[in-house]
Amino acid sequence: MRAVTSLTNPTVKAVRALHLRKDRDETGLFLAEGLKHVTEGVELGHAPRILMYGPEAASHPLLRKAADATRRAGGEVIEVTQEILAKVSRRDNPQAVVGVFPQVYRPLSEIDPKAADCWVALHRVRDPGNLGTIVRTADAAGCGGVILVGECCDPYSVEAVRATMGSVFAVPLSRCGEAEFAAWRKGWPGSVVGTLLSATHSHASADYRKPALILMGNEQQGLTPEMAALPDLNVKIPMRGRADSLNLSVATGIMIYAATS
Amino acid sequence: MRAVTSLTNPTVKAVRALHLRKDRDETGLFLAEGLKHVTEGVELGHAPRILMYGPEAASHPLLRKAADATRRAGGEVIEVTQEILAKVSRRDNPQAVVGVFPQVYRPLSEIDPKAADCWVALHRVRDPGNLGTIVRTADAAGCGGVILVGECCDPYSVEAVRATMGSVFAVPLSRCGEAEFAAWRKGWPGSVVGTLLSATHSHASADYRKPALILMGNEQQGLTPEMAALPDLNVKIPMRGRADSLNLSVATGIMIYAATS
Repeated sequence: MRAVTSLTNPTVKAVRALHLRKDRDETGLFLAEGLKHVTEGVELGHAPRILMYGPEAASHPLLRKAADATRRAGGEVIEVTQEILAKVSRRDNPQAVVGVFPQVYRPLSEIDPKAADCWVALHRVRDPGNLGTIVRTADAAGCGGVILVGECCDPYSVEAVRATMGSVFAVPLSRCGEAEFAAWRKGWPGSVVGTLLSATHSHASADYRKPALILMGNEQQGLTPEMAALPDLNVKIPMRGRADSLNLSVATGIMIYAATS
Repeated sequence: MRAVTSLTNPTVKAVRALHLRKDRDETGLFLAEGLKHVTEGVELGHAPRILMYGPEAASHPLLRKAADATRRAGGEVIEVTQEILAKVSRRDNPQAVVGVFPQVYRPLSEIDPKAADCWVALHRVRDPGNLGTIVRTADAAGCGGVILVGECCDPYSVEAVRATMGSVFAVPLSRCGEAEFAAWRKGWPGSVVGTLLSATHSHASADYRKPALILMGNEQQGLTPEMAALPDLNVKIPMRGRADSLNLSVATGIMIYAATS
């Protein structure tokens, strides 16, 4: 097969456009980089719509498996130049394989709370690096899923997907508005625990009745009063120094492991 | 005072050069952005060598305090244009105030382990965002300091300093080689606890005898065998999903709070 070399190739253009939220929203697709992560996606049942690879990956046995999965699902497999991979990734040293996958969101109504001991809900999270890192932590800790409440950054942005290190394929994502979340939360069979700087309970001594649902506010303001009214209990991670807050992904990691240890 | 408008102004050139590790190493200086963080530096006894501000900060009362501290220490205060701030910060929306401060490293011999319940040592950490976030967490948790072992990324890079959110001024940093660390660690009066994926003990059930010294490996490989031989105990943060590791700053945060809760 001759490699595609032109940036005006329609597939190349479509893949590059996935850096833009508008294009991701319209197509319902996202971009995952690296043969390792693409393979994990395939193994977890996600078939690429487009599989793009550079010359150095052409003979890799894992690539053949991913290409087969792509073709079986009616997707497109193309070999491209190193230059095109760099443009697609916006990086000087791009990964040799890029996959385009369908975004998946699980409706709240399809969540079975008892399927896992811990779940994470994020309200208006703004930083894609934080969001991706939280998805990775949720995966590592065996959480059931991550629920995005209100206007959040896009978990399927290139930056967020990179930070998940492949966990974007393993952790079910859901999204909903604030009112929908408030109504759904009423049926939660375990503890709903919020994190709030003004809380008096320490996170370490809280009762995380399983399944625990951890609710985190955003990077700038933490939980809003409306959201802080929803948990059974709000807790505080003790601040003992000059810093008055933690990075959101660090705070969420501390909460997840407090709830599951 | 007339604002400096030229990118060839020697002070502007010197400040811009601090994005390069070579220039930071040679001058022993670093760049902190934002009136809030510069003020925190000043309040914690760090005097700027250079204070640079844009027109919108000119009349802020906190700026006057920072300018006084700079002049008292023989430093230079200059007003610059928005354009120059953007070039100095390499950002479209730069902070209105930038301070240049001396880097500080505390020798291992000057560390008093009993001054805090928890300390953090990082071996060959590579990502400046992770390093800065760990410094922020160490500050929030009241740790005594962060010790950089072996070839690490620069805690005084612009990216690392940004991630500390001002904690770079509050948390004492030390650095040393592997052999120096191994020798110094022998005199540690509390537990030295390493984090290792192959460990059998869970991080949650370990004995963190105070002062606890948490030792973390780097992003790619974790603790090397040589470093893993140094702790009293190596522990594992349980991995229950598909992901086989955590982000380093998240893992360090979980360890710090496990040791201090």
